[in-house]
Amino acid sequence: MPRSGDDPGPRLRVFREQVDAALAGVLPSPPACPAMVAEAMAYSLNAGGKRLRPLLCLASAGAVGGEPAAAMPAACAVELIHTYSLIHDDLPAMDNDTLRRGRPTLHVVAGTGQAILAGDGLLTEAFSLLAHATDNIPDAAARTLRTLGVIADAAGARGMVGGQAIDLACVHRDPQGRLGAPLDADGLRDMHMRKTGALIRASAVAGAIMSGGARPAVAAVGRMGNEFGLAFQIVDDILDAEGDPSVLGKTAGKDAAAGKPTYPARYGVDSSRRMAAECLDRARATLDEANVDTVDLMEIGRWIVERSR
Amino acid sequence: MPRSGDDPGPRLRVFREQVDAALAGVLPSPPACPAMVAEAMAYSLNAGGKRLRPLLCLASAGAVGGEPAAAMPAACAVELIHTYSLIHDDLPAMDNDTLRRGRPTLHVVAGTGQAILAGDGLLTEAFSLLAHATDNIPDAAARTLRTLGVIADAAGARGMVGGQAIDLACVHRDPQGRLGAPLDADGLRDMHMRKTGALIRASAVAGAIMSGGARPAVAAVGRMGNEFGLAFQIVDDILDAEGDPSVLGKTAGKDAAAGKPTYPARYGVDSSRRMAAECLDRARATLDEANVDTVDLMEIGRWIVERSR
Repeated sequence: MPRSGDDPGPRLRVFREQVDAALAGVLPSPPACPAMVAEAMAYSLNAGGKRLRPLLCLASAGAVGGEPAAAMPAACAVELIHTYSLIHDDLPAMDNDTLRRGRPTLHVVAGTGQAILAGDGLLTEAFSLLAHATDNIPDAAARTLRTLGVIADAAGARGMVGGQAIDLACVHRDPQGRLGAPLDADGLRDMHMRKTGALIRASAVAGAIMSGGARPAVAAVGRMGNEFGLAFQIVDDILDAEGDPSVLGKTAGKDAAAGKPTYPARYGVDSSRRMAAECLDRARATLDEANVDTVDLMEIGRWIVERSR
Repeated sequence: MPRSGDDPGPRLRVFREQVDAALAGVLPSPPACPAMVAEAMAYSLNAGGKRLRPLLCLASAGAVGGEPAAAMPAACAVELIHTYSLIHDDLPAMDNDTLRRGRPTLHVVAGTGQAILAGDGLLTEAFSLLAHATDNIPDAAARTLRTLGVIADAAGARGMVGGQAIDLACVHRDPQGRLGAPLDADGLRDMHMRKTGALIRASAVAGAIMSGGARPAVAAVGRMGNEFGLAFQIVDDILDAEGDPSVLGKTAGKDAAAGKPTYPARYGVDSSRRMAAECLDRARATLDEANVDTVDLMEIGRWIVERSR
């Protein structure tokens, strides 16, 4: 029986169970933190996400010859950061989305102020978690700190925050009534690489570093991460343009309605699909060249491109 | 000539110049990140804050016998985090403040979405900065990672984010129309310790750890930080109740108008002032007991209590 595009395959399903188990124990709870923040963070973290970034993190750890378990703190950290970014992106002042993964968005159920704080809390917790990840492992601090730097750089103004700012400026006028400059092809690619690509790349690199991968293997995984990140965002744009909202779990057609720059809007759906497939080809070539194991990683690549949500 | 309450004294003024110089070079700029994010982050970071937390960080480093310069990355990190917290606290969905340090708040000039993102960027940058702080210093990773953990724990749901969530729940109804439970004396103290005290304490502890302080000295500085943090928030409440808006640089009287639980509202202004002074007495006793140098630290304590803004 052919596998559905949304099934990451048996090996990755095992990783996903491990990730869900680890995430279940990762957030602070009362009395360490107020109940309302704990509940708000958990509402979004446990909303049934794909766990793509943590799976990529663990698979990269294994692919460079390391132990996936050593990368679990990094895997959890990138999922916390991804979750925070969804909460803040959905806010009324941003994309103003009321539906996410088939449920009301956090600001709808908890209020905008508490949603902002829950996002802030998840982001901060990601770094707290990493800072304490190797408390009892001598000599691991340098590796952990390097991993943390890779993730922070990808999540911040250089990466995801910067990409979202560009995205927002394209569709929201500032208080002076100005819109951002229209994006050309390079600008569109730059926005996508920052907004989505940077954290996907960092997820892969973080796994490779945390598990002790050699520099050339880490570098190859980073180049693969760039290709996966771009492919992911291209497919995201396609799904928004022609996906089924009941499968997506969120409102579709919002990009076109908002006049957002997207790959399908610029290149058409067929060319966009081809471009995503080409990303996978380049990713495989770069992994082969560095003798990095491709089995799990290319399974994730296939999943990124064939998914329906 | 007696010194004004707002003058931190000649030794700390030197630290302040060093902090301002370091902060001037700490944020990413184009092309590393989009210009709009760089400008928004800089608008708030360069708004002329007191730099209390970085000064406390550097003074703590010196007080435990270390080199203040070693603590500069931590000093910058806590100021970035403080600045992000002001941006998010001022948002329409939070305290809805339009004036801060005598200038329009960031969301007024850049829009709410960009202000949220600038805050996210500053928070993330704080951790990026620390992660790279000791890139070229062998064997410093463990110290840096420990510092980063202290700061992250204080900034997140266990600390500042948690405190702000409690604060918000006291005055804003959630989408179901519910307010948080009224705070008793313990609840008020808990909120203050999280919202303001935790990061002030972490600033002191971070300086002591980064500069290589011994465990007992670090612990004493932490207890002092708790006292300073509580004193700071008590004085903040008093200034909101009876301060001069033209000196404060922000709207006064907002706490009472919003029905916020505060020290003056609960204990009266005179008792509140006495409670702040008692915090300083306890701080000095704990430092003396651990043989930590008190000159600069108690100067900061005096400044915390005597300031008019």
